[in-house]
Amino acid sequence: MESGQCTGPSVVLAVDIGGTTVKGSVFVEGVELSPGRTVPTFKGSLGAFDAVLAMVSGLARTARALGHEPTAIGAGTPGLVDTRAGLVCYASNLGWTNLPLGQLLEERVGVPALIDHDARTAARAEMAVRPALQDFVFIPIGTGVSGAVVTAGKTVIGARGQAGELGHVPTMPNGRPCSCGQFGCLEAYASASAVLAGYIAAGGTADSAEEVAALVGTDALADEAWSEAVNALAKGIIMLTATLDPAEIIIGGGLSAAGPVLLDPLREKVGNLLGWRDSPAISTSHAGPRAGLIGAALLGTTVQSSFSHTSQGSP
Amino acid sequence: MESGQCTGPSVVLAVDIGGTTVKGSVFVEGVELSPGRTVPTFKGSLGAFDAVLAMVSGLARTARALGHEPTAIGAGTPGLVDTRAGLVCYASNLGWTNLPLGQLLEERVGVPALIDHDARTAARAEMAVRPALQDFVFIPIGTGVSGAVVTAGKTVIGARGQAGELGHVPTMPNGRPCSCGQFGCLEAYASASAVLAGYIAAGGTADSAEEVAALVGTDALADEAWSEAVNALAKGIIMLTATLDPAEIIIGGGLSAAGPVLLDPLREKVGNLLGWRDSPAISTSHAGPRAGLIGAALLGTTVQSSFSHTSQGSP
Repeated sequence: MESGQCTGPSVVLAVDIGGTTVKGSVFVEGVELSPGRTVPTFKGSLGAFDAVLAMVSGLARTARALGHEPTAIGAGTPGLVDTRAGLVCYASNLGWTNLPLGQLLEERVGVPALIDHDARTAARAEMAVRPALQDFVFIPIGTGVSGAVVTAGKTVIGARGQAGELGHVPTMPNGRPCSCGQFGCLEAYASASAVLAGYIAAGGTADSAEEVAALVGTDALADEAWSEAVNALAKGIIMLTATLDPAEIIIGGGLSAAGPVLLDPLREKVGNLLGWRDSPAISTSHAGPRAGLIGAALLGTTVQSSFSHTSQGSP
Repeated sequence: MESGQCTGPSVVLAVDIGGTTVKGSVFVEGVELSPGRTVPTFKGSLGAFDAVLAMVSGLARTARALGHEPTAIGAGTPGLVDTRAGLVCYASNLGWTNLPLGQLLEERVGVPALIDHDARTAARAEMAVRPALQDFVFIPIGTGVSGAVVTAGKTVIGARGQAGELGHVPTMPNGRPCSCGQFGCLEAYASASAVLAGYIAAGGTADSAEEVAALVGTDALADEAWSEAVNALAKGIIMLTATLDPAEIIIGGGLSAAGPVLLDPLREKVGNLLGWRDSPAISTSHAGPRAGLIGAALLGTTVQSSFSHTSQGSP
C-alpha cells in the first residue's frame, strides 16, 4: 500500500456474497458511486469464486474509470468465516472450504481486503442507522438462517471468528435432519427454503416462501408450514434472550419481507413462552435489503484505517 | 464517601449469596484478611436479606476491629440482577422481587456497594486466574443452573443486566415443567436438584446429586438420571457454541465436583453432535469453589475506583 493513500479519500469496493447473487458497489467516502450491480453466484460451469473475482475486478475498473483509485475491499460472505485470518473456513452453499478469500481479493486488486460473515456486515449497517441500539441480535433469514450478536455495541466474533451460526441451534430434538448433520436445527424449520419445502411436503403448491407467506390465513397448509417456522424461531429467540438479554431481535433477509405476517405471531409466541421475564422487542431490519452491501462498505473503511496504522508502524 | 479514602488501601467486604449459604470475607488490597465466614441463608423465620445484612455488618465490624476502614462492598447474588441499578429484579430461591440490594447495603455500612449476578462474579475470578482466556461461558451448576458469557474479554451484561440465565434455555420441547413456567428448561434436567429428583422419581434412594454421581457406572438408575443431565447440558453447549463460538465452556458449582464423571460423557456427546465444526474445550472451574467470593472482592475493587472517579467529578 502506498503511503499517499492514507490521506486520500476512502474508495471501498463493497461486495455482498449470497447463495443466489453477488452484489457489489463502489463507495467513495461512504457515498455510493453508482447504483451497484448484481450478478448470479453460479453461471454455467463457473463457481462462486469466479463470480466474486469478476465482480471485484469490475468494481475496480468502474472506480478507476471515474478517477477513484480503490483503497480497500470489504466483503460479506456466508459460512464459517475467520475474519482475522481472512479465511472462509466452510460455506456449504458456495462450495468453499478453507478459502483464503481476503488474500485472494487483495492479490487481484492490489489493495487490502477484509472479509466478514454476511450477517455481521449487515449488523454493522443496522448499528450505523440506529447508534443507540447497543444490545441486539440480527437474524437474516433466506435460503439459510444466520445471525450476528451485538452486545454493548460490539459484534461478537468468537474464539475462531465463528459466532452467530444461529441456523444450527437445535430447536427440536430428533427433529428434521439438517445439512450440518444435526437434527432439529432452527434452519431446518425457519429458513425460507424450509418453509417452502414444508408446504410442498404437506401437499401445497408454491414456488417460494413469499408465496406461502401470502397464503397464511386463507390456506390451512400454509398456516401449518408458517407456524412450524414461527415456533422454531420463537424457541431460538427465547434461547437468545435467556443467554444474552438483547433489547431487540431484528429479523432480516428475504423472509422478513412478510412483515406483520411474521412479526405478529412471533411476538405473541415469544411473549407467551417468556412469562418469567420481559420479551425483547422484535422487529425487521431498519437498514433494509441492502444492509449487507452497506455493511461491507463500512467494513472496508475499517480495513483502510487499520492498514494505514500498520503502514505507519504504529500498533 | 470521604475524599481521603481515594488514596487509602482498598478494603472490600465481599459477599457471595447462595440459596443455601451466604459466604463473606474481608479483602485488603486483594488479600483475604481472615478465613471468611459462612452462615445459612435461611434461619428460623428470618429471610435471606437478614442473613446478608448480618453478614455485611459482621464483616464491617471485623475489618474495623483490625484497623481497616471498609471502602466498598462487592456482592454476588443469584436471580435476575440489574447491576447498573443495584437491583435484584427477581430471585425466586431467595424470595426477592425488585430488591434495591446495592442501596440497602450502602446504607447499612456507609460505603459504596456494587452487586452482580453470582455467575458473573465467579467468571471475574476465572478471568483473573486465566487472563489469556477471552471467549468462554461459565456455567455454575448447583440448586439451579446459571451462566456468565464472556466475549473478547468482556462479560456480557445485556440490555437489562440479565444476560446469562442459561438455566432457562429450553432444551426439551414439552419436557419437564420448570419453576419459570416454561417446559424442558436446562435447569429442569441438569441442575443438582433435578439430577437428585430424577433419580428418586425413577426409584433410587439418595440424599444429594453427589451421591448419584458416585453411583454412575454401577447403578442403572443413576446412569439414567446422569445421562439425562449430560444430554440436556450437551444441547445447551451446542446452542452456546453455534451462537457465541467460545474457546471454552467452564462448568462450576457443586455438580462440577463430579469431575471426569461429568466431563468425559459431556465432551463425547458434544463432540458427536457438533460434527459440523470444532467443539470448544470443556473444563471445570480453575478458580475453585471460592470463585464467587473472590469475584465479589474483585467487583468491590471496581466499585471503589468508579466511586472515586465520581467523587472527583471526572466521568
